[in-house]
Amino acid sequence: MARIVMKFGGTSVADLDRIRSVAARIKCQVATGDEVAVVVSAMAGVTNQLVGHCQALSPLHDAREYDAVVATGEQVTAGLLAIALQMLGVEARSWQGWQIPLRTDDAHGRARIESVEASTLIARMQAGQVPVVAGFQGVGPNGRVTTLGRGGSDTSAVALAAALDADRCDIYTDVDGIYTTDPRIVPRARKRDRITYEEMLELASVGAKVLQTRSVELAMKQRVRVQVLSSFAELAAPEEGRLPGTLVVDEDEILEQEIVAGIAYSRDEAKVTVRRVPDRPGVAAAVFGPLADAHVNVDMIVQSTGADGSTDMTFTTSKSDLARTIKVLEGARGVIQYGELLTDSEVAKISVVGVGMRSHAGVANTMFRTLSERSINIQVISTSEIKVSVLIGLEYTELAVRALHGAYGLDVG
Amino acid sequence: MARIVMKFGGTSVADLDRIRSVAARIKCQVATGDEVAVVVSAMAGVTNQLVGHCQALSPLHDAREYDAVVATGEQVTAGLLAIALQMLGVEARSWQGWQIPLRTDDAHGRARIESVEASTLIARMQAGQVPVVAGFQGVGPNGRVTTLGRGGSDTSAVALAAALDADRCDIYTDVDGIYTTDPRIVPRARKRDRITYEEMLELASVGAKVLQTRSVELAMKQRVRVQVLSSFAELAAPEEGRLPGTLVVDEDEILEQEIVAGIAYSRDEAKVTVRRVPDRPGVAAAVFGPLADAHVNVDMIVQSTGADGSTDMTFTTSKSDLARTIKVLEGARGVIQYGELLTDSEVAKISVVGVGMRSHAGVANTMFRTLSERSINIQVISTSEIKVSVLIGLEYTELAVRALHGAYGLDVG
Repeated sequence: MARIVMKFGGTSVADLDRIRSVAARIKCQVATGDEVAVVVSAMAGVTNQLVGHCQALSPLHDAREYDAVVATGEQVTAGLLAIALQMLGVEARSWQGWQIPLRTDDAHGRARIESVEASTLIARMQAGQVPVVAGFQGVGPNGRVTTLGRGGSDTSAVALAAALDADRCDIYTDVDGIYTTDPRIVPRARKRDRITYEEMLELASVGAKVLQTRSVELAMKQRVRVQVLSSFAELAAPEEGRLPGTLVVDEDEILEQEIVAGIAYSRDEAKVTVRRVPDRPGVAAAVFGPLADAHVNVDMIVQSTGADGSTDMTFTTSKSDLARTIKVLEGARGVIQYGELLTDSEVAKISVVGVGMRSHAGVANTMFRTLSERSINIQVISTSEIKVSVLIGLEYTELAVRALHGAYGLDVG
Repeated sequence: MARIVMKFGGTSVADLDRIRSVAARIKCQVATGDEVAVVVSAMAGVTNQLVGHCQALSPLHDAREYDAVVATGEQVTAGLLAIALQMLGVEARSWQGWQIPLRTDDAHGRARIESVEASTLIARMQAGQVPVVAGFQGVGPNGRVTTLGRGGSDTSAVALAAALDADRCDIYTDVDGIYTTDPRIVPRARKRDRITYEEMLELASVGAKVLQTRSVELAMKQRVRVQVLSSFAELAAPEEGRLPGTLVVDEDEILEQEIVAGIAYSRDEAKVTVRRVPDRPGVAAAVFGPLADAHVNVDMIVQSTGADGSTDMTFTTSKSDLARTIKVLEGARGVIQYGELLTDSEVAKISVVGVGMRSHAGVANTMFRTLSERSINIQVISTSEIKVSVLIGLEYTELAVRALHGAYGLDVG
């Protein structure tokens, strides 16, 4: 017998039929003898509609009222799923954030979880009841409803799993696990049985948007074993001792660590080059300070100094931040005193991720060689302990991903 | 300076434009220097949709989960209206039932209010903030969300007005007040400035569905002055010392009481006659006991004993209860031992209501004479201290209402 938290996202509970199908899945889990708690998102589209209402009334709406409005989406799903479970003979009860209570700070719209009171829920689970918790929300220090920010239901689920001391937190999504790369680009991509928190974090932040980054960080910190699996796959008896999805775990739970866990890509990139910046101390701060003030997320940064004593500063940002970036930098031209501003949206970022590369040399070199063999020009390089990323021309995305997937021996069969 | 509770129903907040318009109306009230608290219903259609979801998942859904789901409708409106008010520069804050708290018993789906904690709200109102309270809901003894039953937002508003010791509770509806009868039938119907609680109760229960009966009972018990007025009328400076709607008040607040306050009608009536019942003690209980058990609401009851020692028992019920009534009585035929069951849905109930008839004889006789002059046959008569009701053929409804309105001198001009 295990204690399991099951989390279902918006597409998994998009309508009443899917809510019924989720209830059937939970009933199967309960039937194995496991103690089960459930976390749900709002039905797909509901949160966007509520957010739209708030924005239509006031672009600068009060975040406290925004939270009170949008948190209702998850409350509806929790109540409906409890009804669907009871209909199947499964004892269930819905829980809103304030009822648990799941306490957060008062940063409305992006609150951070401070504590989860688990004793009542544990007692109910031990008595055979399934708590159905409204995700994405909590209650702040002043008794106001708070929300955790978009995608916060994953974080709710991991925090609940930690508080319940659960054996596993199963995140049901529209994919059946974490693949070595996007199967739409590489049909021979392989589903991983296990992946480390660190790898998952790097994959999440480079475009494999299966889990919210924050939930993976919390899982890593609290040592919560997270499984990513599909809520749309047929209900079937799982193979003996084998989980259907991908388990995100601590590194020491993976015996035979492969060097490269996966190849990620992101097309949502824009390259900005600030040319002929005077090469003097403080110039990087002069460029990136105003961008940070304007909440522009800057990713890869490269600085190269020319012979004439001036510097070129190149960085990437998301396509949606490009217009703001240009505006900020043009406004700061007098301060930075640069010569020219160049931008390019026709770029993609390709990343090779794996904790194994810490102890294996040559991973980066394999990447550079493979791309070079396909005549793919590398525009920017950035590396971390477990990741190598390169910026290339957008039109080479698929070619690069496929070539690298083969070069690292990830192709199946 | 007065303290006012303003309540807006579902059609008044049906979309964002109407919510903005409601906010503008509240701002005008605040600008007069009044302390204002607001109670809102769910946006029109939302509650029905949520109820539909619950019923689709399970016809016998858990009332606790039903309450958790449907209460969200009012929470959304409260948050959105708070945002709209802030946008107009009015300080506002939304309140859900559990936040106030507005405590109820645990009769989920039809909970009764037990207490309203008013001190925090009063302090905020005195500091210039407008509390926007989600109507229709409270929190039960176990910390679960409860709802007061359909139309419960009127009751929320009256209970809040009582707890706040408010000078008036303004109920905004889609009519601009209480008329002497339905203006669609009698164009010369007159809007009343004032009406007593008792008259309002009789009018509410005979088909003038402006206020929920329960809210009027509570207002009468707690001596809350209730004004019924239109949320769609143009915003205009009210005439000096004159309220735009109809004030529902205690009898002694009305100086020159008219004998008849209004003529009400209901087409939702069905007549049932149980013929040739043995005339013995206990037979009324044998007929009406099983109907009460089946939650059939029985209204007018007439018993007449024939020469042969058997009795005819005639009563009315709503059209929607007729099928159930027939089923129950056919099932109980062996016990009641009646001869025949007759039903008639082609009937209407016409009622003349007025506290003045207590001290004036002849009100009933005027009614009978007036109908007789139009050759309208009276099938059943029932009277209370301040009401005379008759059952007539459905096709005579308009004719009877118009004739009576004239006969009691209610026609305007």
